[in-house]
Amino acid sequence: MVNELESVKKYLYVLMLKAKRFPGMAWRSMWKVGKEDPRRVIHSLKVGLSLTLVSLLYLMEPLFKGIGSNAIWAVMTVVVVLEYTAGATLCKGLNRGLGTLAAGSLAFLMEFIATEYGRVFRAIFIGVAVFVIGAAATYLRFLPYIKKNYDYGVVIFLLTFNLITVSSYRVDNVLKIAHDRFYTIAIGCGICLLMSLLVFPNWSGEDLHNSSVSKLEGLAMSIEACVSKYFKDHEIEPDISKDNTEEDPIYLGYKAVVDSKAYDETLALHASWEPRHSRHCYRYPWQQYVKLGAVLRSFGYTVVALHGCLETEIQTPRSVRALFKDPCTRLAGEVSKALRELADSIRNRRQCSPEVLSDHLHEALQDLNAALKSQPRLFIGSKTNQTSNMLALAAATARQTIDKHLSSVKTDSSALNEWKLSKRVSEKTKEAERKALRPTLSKIAITSLEFSEALPFAAFASLLVETVARLDIVIEEVEELGRMASFKEFDPDDEITVTCENPKVEAASTYNNNLPSHAAD
Amino acid sequence: MVNELESVKKYLYVLMLKAKRFPGMAWRSMWKVGKEDPRRVIHSLKVGLSLTLVSLLYLMEPLFKGIGSNAIWAVMTVVVVLEYTAGATLCKGLNRGLGTLAAGSLAFLMEFIATEYGRVFRAIFIGVAVFVIGAAATYLRFLPYIKKNYDYGVVIFLLTFNLITVSSYRVDNVLKIAHDRFYTIAIGCGICLLMSLLVFPNWSGEDLHNSSVSKLEGLAMSIEACVSKYFKDHEIEPDISKDNTEEDPIYLGYKAVVDSKAYDETLALHASWEPRHSRHCYRYPWQQYVKLGAVLRSFGYTVVALHGCLETEIQTPRSVRALFKDPCTRLAGEVSKALRELADSIRNRRQCSPEVLSDHLHEALQDLNAALKSQPRLFIGSKTNQTSNMLALAAATARQTIDKHLSSVKTDSSALNEWKLSKRVSEKTKEAERKALRPTLSKIAITSLEFSEALPFAAFASLLVETVARLDIVIEEVEELGRMASFKEFDPDDEITVTCENPKVEAASTYNNNLPSHAAD
Repeated sequence: MVNELESVKKYLYVLMLKAKRFPGMAWRSMWKVGKEDPRRVIHSLKVGLSLTLVSLLYLMEPLFKGIGSNAIWAVMTVVVVLEYTAGATLCKGLNRGLGTLAAGSLAFLMEFIATEYGRVFRAIFIGVAVFVIGAAATYLRFLPYIKKNYDYGVVIFLLTFNLITVSSYRVDNVLKIAHDRFYTIAIGCGICLLMSLLVFPNWSGEDLHNSSVSKLEGLAMSIEACVSKYFKDHEIEPDISKDNTEEDPIYLGYKAVVDSKAYDETLALHASWEPRHSRHCYRYPWQQYVKLGAVLRSFGYTVVALHGCLETEIQTPRSVRALFKDPCTRLAGEVSKALRELADSIRNRRQCSPEVLSDHLHEALQDLNAALKSQPRLFIGSKTNQTSNMLALAAATARQTIDKHLSSVKTDSSALNEWKLSKRVSEKTKEAERKALRPTLSKIAITSLEFSEALPFAAFASLLVETVARLDIVIEEVEELGRMASFKEFDPDDEITVTCENPKVEAASTYNNNLPSHAAD
Repeated sequence: MVNELESVKKYLYVLMLKAKRFPGMAWRSMWKVGKEDPRRVIHSLKVGLSLTLVSLLYLMEPLFKGIGSNAIWAVMTVVVVLEYTAGATLCKGLNRGLGTLAAGSLAFLMEFIATEYGRVFRAIFIGVAVFVIGAAATYLRFLPYIKKNYDYGVVIFLLTFNLITVSSYRVDNVLKIAHDRFYTIAIGCGICLLMSLLVFPNWSGEDLHNSSVSKLEGLAMSIEACVSKYFKDHEIEPDISKDNTEEDPIYLGYKAVVDSKAYDETLALHASWEPRHSRHCYRYPWQQYVKLGAVLRSFGYTVVALHGCLETEIQTPRSVRALFKDPCTRLAGEVSKALRELADSIRNRRQCSPEVLSDHLHEALQDLNAALKSQPRLFIGSKTNQTSNMLALAAATARQTIDKHLSSVKTDSSALNEWKLSKRVSEKTKEAERKALRPTLSKIAITSLEFSEALPFAAFASLLVETVARLDIVIEEVEELGRMASFKEFDPDDEITVTCENPKVEAASTYNNNLPSHAAD
């Protein structure tokens, strides 16, 4: 009994503590939401303002006399239609308009037919029509195309149709009602469009554009963090943690990418409703952003797998990993640099440099390959001639592989240069290797690089190389985007790598302000 | 001129062809939507029926006399609230109810204050209140917690608050209006709940449950398809296709898994509103399904990476791959089997077998490891004693690695048995290896397994091993789910593997009917 009382007391105490802490927590999270994106505060004020404006229809005597109590529909429209971005508002507003119009027309057709007959027949007719149209419209909403583009419109169609048809049974001058209502809805829509298009507009397209940039940068950060963590000197405790920690920069980098599908598609859909708010008049290729998003997602999966290599149970010994630290770090650095260059090019709406896949990347790839090739030799005794022949054969095969891969990652525009270069390089390396071969052969195995232990590292390296291959696809899509969106030509006189930091800071600040740069246009 | 006419003609012709084909295509896609999930047809009919029912309020004389033209709000409620699953309807209905109630209370409070003052002051007061409440409510919608759970409720709150406050300025007996309106909305909600809970209900929880099962099966299929494609005898053209073909079974298997986040969370949210429709009365752990979904997603990323190995530019020569075909296929088979067993256990709501990680899996893992270990020897010349010592050392290290890994994937319950077994096995293999060592050493390299060419295969094998590690986490989550949802105990007398096919067919048919099994409860 005493115990129970105690536990109740304790419970109450905990509850009180929670209640005490609640205002603080609520305040903090409110603050955080606003700080993350100040546009949210502006949007809230915009909604408040629009509602007050539309309320004036009711509150001001002369306006009310003109419109009457149907003004309530304008209020309703503002609440429902005004959305965060201009595209979403337009999409909803037009859907609402189209739905209302279609429903009105159909309802009048029905009215026209039903009015000929007696009262009972009319009731039955309306009942059947409501059933059939209701079922058909609902079924229509399951069609993927309708669901994606016109879901809201169909709901409004159904709503309006039912309201008009049913009330037409009791009210005589439905035409007048519908007419008034349509007016007030139009006023509501007008206020919404005014507010969302002209007063501090948030463009879905802008958001989509910026999210593409930040996704590219996130991936770049992830890869670098991954590699630097993998080759860190002190031991990481290998735990396959179920829930990735929130602060892990690797996780943060790819998180937004791999779960971006629905978000991207919604933004692109809304963006496609937005008027061209930039100087250019062409149809802006929002779908290309979605395609780029898909490619980035599949790039992201590779990064996730790379991250997985850091967390597996079996780890290649640190001493062995250290052998490959430099080429891997360099390769990752080059991949990141390329991603950042792509991000920059999208951010500044210019086509990406044809040398985005720089020679450095190729060299890094070659270095890694060379480092990998050099290691199996550690196993080999130096006495047999036969083996050394074998080795020469293997080396030749490998060289072919490098060439093949190098040619596979080159961009079309620079194909010829690349080819010449790689030929020259490979000739040089051939000689260098021939020189290096002898001394290496005289060494006896110094590291016991056992295959099953080398396996995780091999996976790591292979995934790293895989990112290069996928980078190629990303570059293709970004180039395609640049072509379709008529980004300005790449100017080779621009400082390509030097300015890499400069525009980033600038653009980051606009992104933090989150006031789209076109607001002032 | 003639050319232009020609092109216009051509354009018209194409348009006509399209228009001709349109009805057929529309019909086919309508048919497909219904065939995919016949519940959709039933839902459409349900909506039609509900609308007709609610229209009766208007159409039937005695009902209309009681309720009057406010009946229109009941129609509106039905259109907006009635959703596909019971949980979604409840969620929307309760949100609507709560929002309306809160808005009504607040509006009356305002009315109470404002009524004391003059007409002009009242108008200003209302205008300010509309602004403040509008901005605050909109800002509230950005809070993640509110957005997730009560977004619709806040919209309805705002809508109702504005309607009542604004119209209270012109109408005197707002209390009566609100009262009537609340009644009719309650009637509308009642019809919706009746329809969605009692007439062929679709449960979100059921959908979530089934989607977990099908995700597990999809992953199992993907892995098997991946491995069998990788070791296929004829060459695959290695193309990193940007858009995966729709028919690729590998892609189909993991597609639903990796993009499942939003879908899972929505279903779990709606499911949490649903009444416990099963015999048990405990709080059903829907969030555990979401957690399982997250784990499956990260499993899925590994499968995506595995799929990526099939599509890279550099491929390990087929001859080399063939060496590892059997252990890899076996390992993949075992992983798939375990996944299917998990799927079966969830489907039949029974706890999964403690032997889900069977000895076969361990053996397969060991085989693969042994196969991998055996290959580097191919490089080694047979003359040096030193090398053979090195090799013994390496073999010993590797053995430790196997043991470590084997112990890492064992489940707790079978730890002791496993440990004994693995010890026995490893002793056996030790002897076997010692025997096998001599003959192998006398051979000289017969395959030029060059590291940079072996790399892709190493990645493949490593990712395959990685799936085993991740499988372990999946099993943990499924076991946790079984505990939390009080699935029935695993009965070792059940035929574990033999019935594997039987319940699957049965459950597949229910899944195809898509009439949840609890409909009749």
